[in-house]
Amino acid sequence: MTDTSARTASSSERVLIFDTTLRDGEQCPGATMTLEEKLAVAEMLDTMGVDIIEAGFPIASNGDFEAVAEIARRSKSAVIAGLARAIPADITRAGEAVKFARRGRIHTFVSTSPIHLAHQMRKTEDEVLEIILKTVAQARDLVEDVEWSAMDATRTPIDYLCRCVEAAIRVGATTINLPDTVGYATPEEYRAMFRAVRERVPNSDKAVFSVHCHNDLGLAVANSLAGIEGGARQVECTINGIGERAGNAALEEIVMAIKTRADVLPYATGIDTTQLVRASKLVAGATHFPVQYNKAIVGRNAFAHESGIHQDGMLKNQTTYEIMTPESVGVHKTSLVMGKHSGRAAFRSKLDDMGYRLSDNQFQDAFERFKALADRKKHVYDEDIEALVDENLATAHDRIRLVSLTVVAGTRGPQRATMKLAIEGRTVTEEVDGNGPVDAVFNAIQALVPHEASLELYDVHAVTGGSDAQAEVSVRLRQDDRIVTARGADPDTLVASAKAYLAALNKLMAGASRLHAQHAAAE
Amino acid sequence: MTDTSARTASSSERVLIFDTTLRDGEQCPGATMTLEEKLAVAEMLDTMGVDIIEAGFPIASNGDFEAVAEIARRSKSAVIAGLARAIPADITRAGEAVKFARRGRIHTFVSTSPIHLAHQMRKTEDEVLEIILKTVAQARDLVEDVEWSAMDATRTPIDYLCRCVEAAIRVGATTINLPDTVGYATPEEYRAMFRAVRERVPNSDKAVFSVHCHNDLGLAVANSLAGIEGGARQVECTINGIGERAGNAALEEIVMAIKTRADVLPYATGIDTTQLVRASKLVAGATHFPVQYNKAIVGRNAFAHESGIHQDGMLKNQTTYEIMTPESVGVHKTSLVMGKHSGRAAFRSKLDDMGYRLSDNQFQDAFERFKALADRKKHVYDEDIEALVDENLATAHDRIRLVSLTVVAGTRGPQRATMKLAIEGRTVTEEVDGNGPVDAVFNAIQALVPHEASLELYDVHAVTGGSDAQAEVSVRLRQDDRIVTARGADPDTLVASAKAYLAALNKLMAGASRLHAQHAAAE
Repeated sequence: MTDTSARTASSSERVLIFDTTLRDGEQCPGATMTLEEKLAVAEMLDTMGVDIIEAGFPIASNGDFEAVAEIARRSKSAVIAGLARAIPADITRAGEAVKFARRGRIHTFVSTSPIHLAHQMRKTEDEVLEIILKTVAQARDLVEDVEWSAMDATRTPIDYLCRCVEAAIRVGATTINLPDTVGYATPEEYRAMFRAVRERVPNSDKAVFSVHCHNDLGLAVANSLAGIEGGARQVECTINGIGERAGNAALEEIVMAIKTRADVLPYATGIDTTQLVRASKLVAGATHFPVQYNKAIVGRNAFAHESGIHQDGMLKNQTTYEIMTPESVGVHKTSLVMGKHSGRAAFRSKLDDMGYRLSDNQFQDAFERFKALADRKKHVYDEDIEALVDENLATAHDRIRLVSLTVVAGTRGPQRATMKLAIEGRTVTEEVDGNGPVDAVFNAIQALVPHEASLELYDVHAVTGGSDAQAEVSVRLRQDDRIVTARGADPDTLVASAKAYLAALNKLMAGASRLHAQHAAAE
Repeated sequence: MTDTSARTASSSERVLIFDTTLRDGEQCPGATMTLEEKLAVAEMLDTMGVDIIEAGFPIASNGDFEAVAEIARRSKSAVIAGLARAIPADITRAGEAVKFARRGRIHTFVSTSPIHLAHQMRKTEDEVLEIILKTVAQARDLVEDVEWSAMDATRTPIDYLCRCVEAAIRVGATTINLPDTVGYATPEEYRAMFRAVRERVPNSDKAVFSVHCHNDLGLAVANSLAGIEGGARQVECTINGIGERAGNAALEEIVMAIKTRADVLPYATGIDTTQLVRASKLVAGATHFPVQYNKAIVGRNAFAHESGIHQDGMLKNQTTYEIMTPESVGVHKTSLVMGKHSGRAAFRSKLDDMGYRLSDNQFQDAFERFKALADRKKHVYDEDIEALVDENLATAHDRIRLVSLTVVAGTRGPQRATMKLAIEGRTVTEEVDGNGPVDAVFNAIQALVPHEASLELYDVHAVTGGSDAQAEVSVRLRQDDRIVTARGADPDTLVASAKAYLAALNKLMAGASRLHAQHAAAE
């Protein structure tokens, strides 16, 4: 067997990549993104060659509707899909959101498994079949491109599943998705299900079949590939595999498995794989879901023989241990960019290289932050610039801003924070004690901006190595049913903590509350 | 299909679980553990029913030898394995280390693929066959239980692989491991390889076959299960899937896949699955490799419908969405334990419940830390106690201890730290500025304990929710080829940072340097 990573068979069948990071990924606990973050992720996905972007669940809230509509307006080549339950109002709303896209899709779903019919829907098989006929037909009246999903397909008896699929295609579904909703299937079962449905449904040649796998037993990628072998030609997946519970199949793993094993998986995707690591970082940053070091493809150890670790002389040359190159997924060595004497043109060129496209105002703000950072930090690395620009994008519309902060802390408490904030222009100051410096900082914010939200997560990591590295702090706040996560970066951990907490508060204040219906869309 | 999670077919064939967290897991960049941490992990693995514990690579260093020997001495029911290259000195040393075990195993390996033979070993097929005959026979002279691995088996031509396996069994190998060293195989290929080798090798019934999969393409669990279907009856895996590059197959995923899908995977393991989450936390803590939220089985979102998230009325009862229960893997709701008035007996009983078995000295130290924490923190949770006991175990033999720390920080720099340390009993003090409070703290340590190590990673997370939560800080230091990671916990982030940095320094000073040979054992 030889290394085939460089080869893509010219006769490969095309597999469509359907990314649901912004829908199935974003609806998992704590992964909520702002509109700006969603737009940035959607642009990345469109640019890297995702075929279909599921942008959200328009009926869930006005915020969700606006996000889907705006992503649709800005779409370049990807199809933009909006999710809808098998309810006329959902489908109408999804249609209104995706109509702004060059190519829009309504994705509607209903449960088909006995366990869901009995416990959740309280409907008979015939009643559900009737619903499928009506809702898919309604969707097809609104758009040409209609996807229908059989929720919990892998626990649905094959005869009934075939009747449902036949009905959906008959009234106009162009894509049929058969998800493993609870992450229960084995590859053999999943492959066999697709083969059986495609063989037994008379009009199955009129639709593209789709896999959608969850990773509860660690089998999401293998199941997705098995479904493709069974005849599916669309894969539903998310960046970093984020999603409900154990998450969805990871886009980067499926794409690289197909690319690396082209000899036994004769398929091709349209993904520019050199964008995978950048996409991973963007989504990890927006959701603050950390990527474990040994995560396949995008983890920091995934190519650890490249990480500067001592290379034992007798071992480890590329041909013996490498089945894909780091460069093929966009891993670059950390590069020293510039210091305080670097100018505007150099900074803009650097941002271009890193794939950022900022407006003039955004660029100006980022450049000012860069100069301020360069005054305090000797070496400014790519990662520093990423943290700075990402924070910049996130805080553009803040009502509350940090003006100044002083903290006294240590083993001899109490710890004390003196904080000055600008709240919609008005400046306020407070001096507050706490149990630890972070507690003191957060107590000061509470004193200046009284609020009910509770702190659910507090995480810090250093953006680069070295003790003068910037600290990047993530804070997750919960208020009633709403959960937001936000970040702040600064060489001073406590300043970064204050920024992150304030960013989360700003998010909470800015966001419209979301319908509980959002939680209904677990596929 | 019905939920079969509770059922284990009585006719199931037993699959042996071979855990290599302490060898293949521990040798990945940054995962180095201290002797105490290794002993705690080994005890956990033994208690939870792991059949074979690969405890280390005895020839790599005196520290590794001592760890394997001590784990062997303390072993209760697990077989203790030590790794050895196909070199007489390695095998002798491994034999010396595992002889203390009730049941010891020597695990020796050699590359068999053309790419490794040509580029790495520069030997012919016949020379390698000769090496196998000699080294396996040598090992079998020392112990009854000998495992032989064909490194890079999945890229080895099947004819030559069969000759090697036949030879190894002929001279006494009782287990034959056929690893997917580079994480390259698909489930179909891996299953077929085991079927072919077991059919074609005349004496294949005299050995147990073993799978060993890496997750570079996200297929490690599926490949492991496919290998079992192909006739393997031992699975090599690690807790949390840690290991070189994208890691090894995750023990918890394989065990729960077999248990949950007993209807189509008629196998059984000896693992007490209710210990899986505890084992995951122990290993994540010892290595400071964070577990991503959506990690299957042990991620914090893996059972997110149990996490207190708003339960939509129309959806989500256990039968519709749960294929295994959180309790089956040891997830318990965070429970309020006690406050400052809780006594010694209550604390001991709590530790027992949590699975800790401490010596009297360890208990006394932990109790004092608990009382100190309860004075500062209103509610003390299970997670607080875990952080406190784990830190306690880690810092038992420190040369350098933190006496006191005061820090002044904020937006108006410079930030300043005043630190007092006890170095082998002698007290020293320093006041130092820094670029941010963490930098100031670390600069103070550098001033008091001059050293060459560089900071590679700095991470903070809150142990529980709320802004008065303890901060748990992880610090990774590198000195030449040595990398250590250590943690510190305190309600004050900066104190926790100082403790973590000092713990890492203590580890660096305590550890003997390890042979580069360690890095040669990539399987």
